[in-house]
Amino acid sequence: MSRLKFQISVSLDGFVAGPNQSEEHPLGEGGMQLHEWVVRLAAWREPHGRDGGEVNASTPILEEATANVGATIMGRNMFGGGPGPWGDDPWRGWWGDEPPFHHPVFVLTHHEREPLVLEGTTFTFVTDGIESALAQAREAAGGKDVTIGGGAAAAQQYLAAGLIDEMLLNVAPVLLGSGTRLFENLGDVAAIGLEQVRVVEAPGVAHLAYRAA
Amino acid sequence: MSRLKFQISVSLDGFVAGPNQSEEHPLGEGGMQLHEWVVRLAAWREPHGRDGGEVNASTPILEEATANVGATIMGRNMFGGGPGPWGDDPWRGWWGDEPPFHHPVFVLTHHEREPLVLEGTTFTFVTDGIESALAQAREAAGGKDVTIGGGAAAAQQYLAAGLIDEMLLNVAPVLLGSGTRLFENLGDVAAIGLEQVRVVEAPGVAHLAYRAA
Repeated sequence: MSRLKFQISVSLDGFVAGPNQSEEHPLGEGGMQLHEWVVRLAAWREPHGRDGGEVNASTPILEEATANVGATIMGRNMFGGGPGPWGDDPWRGWWGDEPPFHHPVFVLTHHEREPLVLEGTTFTFVTDGIESALAQAREAAGGKDVTIGGGAAAAQQYLAAGLIDEMLLNVAPVLLGSGTRLFENLGDVAAIGLEQVRVVEAPGVAHLAYRAA
Repeated sequence: MSRLKFQISVSLDGFVAGPNQSEEHPLGEGGMQLHEWVVRLAAWREPHGRDGGEVNASTPILEEATANVGATIMGRNMFGGGPGPWGDDPWRGWWGDEPPFHHPVFVLTHHEREPLVLEGTTFTFVTDGIESALAQAREAAGGKDVTIGGGAAAAQQYLAAGLIDEMLLNVAPVLLGSGTRLFENLGDVAAIGLEQVRVVEAPGVAHLAYRAA
């Protein structure tokens, strides 16, 4: 069964990005601290074209989260193209000529646009809502899982709709004070049943895994 | 060295109490879910006069958090007496004739009042600020640790002042959507350095322990 899952790094006070996002601070002030645990991993560096890195308790967690994924859904800002506060190039978004996905990506947007075909990845722009995007992503995934690449708003919409099967929070030991909250705009949260699946201690991060109850 | 520490149960979205606190829902709507992990423990039930309960991975965590504590500091609402939204009895607060503390308790309040001496516990009311309360509590603790009994506002004031040595978050797999946030009103959070000490998986809860960096 193809599952809808996402993993996201979050501060101890619940932010996925710090305040005052800008070109200089795309993750907001202090936001890079949320990702220190992953940037040090060889399992992250290799697919992102960087040398070195370590193997630790986070390695199998990251590998499992990214394994068996056949398609990604992301929000417009995560793609980075089209009208928005960032991204000057309306055709490529953030991702360059060879995006790191190696599978189809579906971008939630209000702006119709032809698919963008790049090396290993086609970005398809979906204007008719999150359920349509999920249906298209599942079809494209061919039985594999679908993941949400971010940002927070995309994850929130799927959470609020009760469509998330699995969720992995990577909690960094940092307080950001303000910024973009992960858990917000969720509507009737009592309807979102969660079950704790696993809790893993790793260097500089706590991995908390949940599934729909 | 006497440490200042606290442990608190929090929802996955960062609330220590749900919305609409009332006599019927003293922890707010849904707030009791935050404490299901502890109410099932024999180590919690016995000192609270209840039979039965289980021993699981949370047991040593709870025992350690409550061990070596010589004094407690709490906010006015946690005491429950005096002017406030709850608490009809201005002399006893929530705690009855035999409070479960068995050591001195210091209550942060703006209302001067003589100490309340009960079986095993004296409540001392401190009107000259959190640092005075801490100094009095350390003195009373006689070298043992001082803990913050709650609520969120008391913990926040000590966090913001950089006075917390150790913090244990018990994260329940539940979303409350609104209510009382733990991490709020912290001022310059970048000045609050945290180090992850331990992460423990237990039935229905994730224990995340931090210390001042």
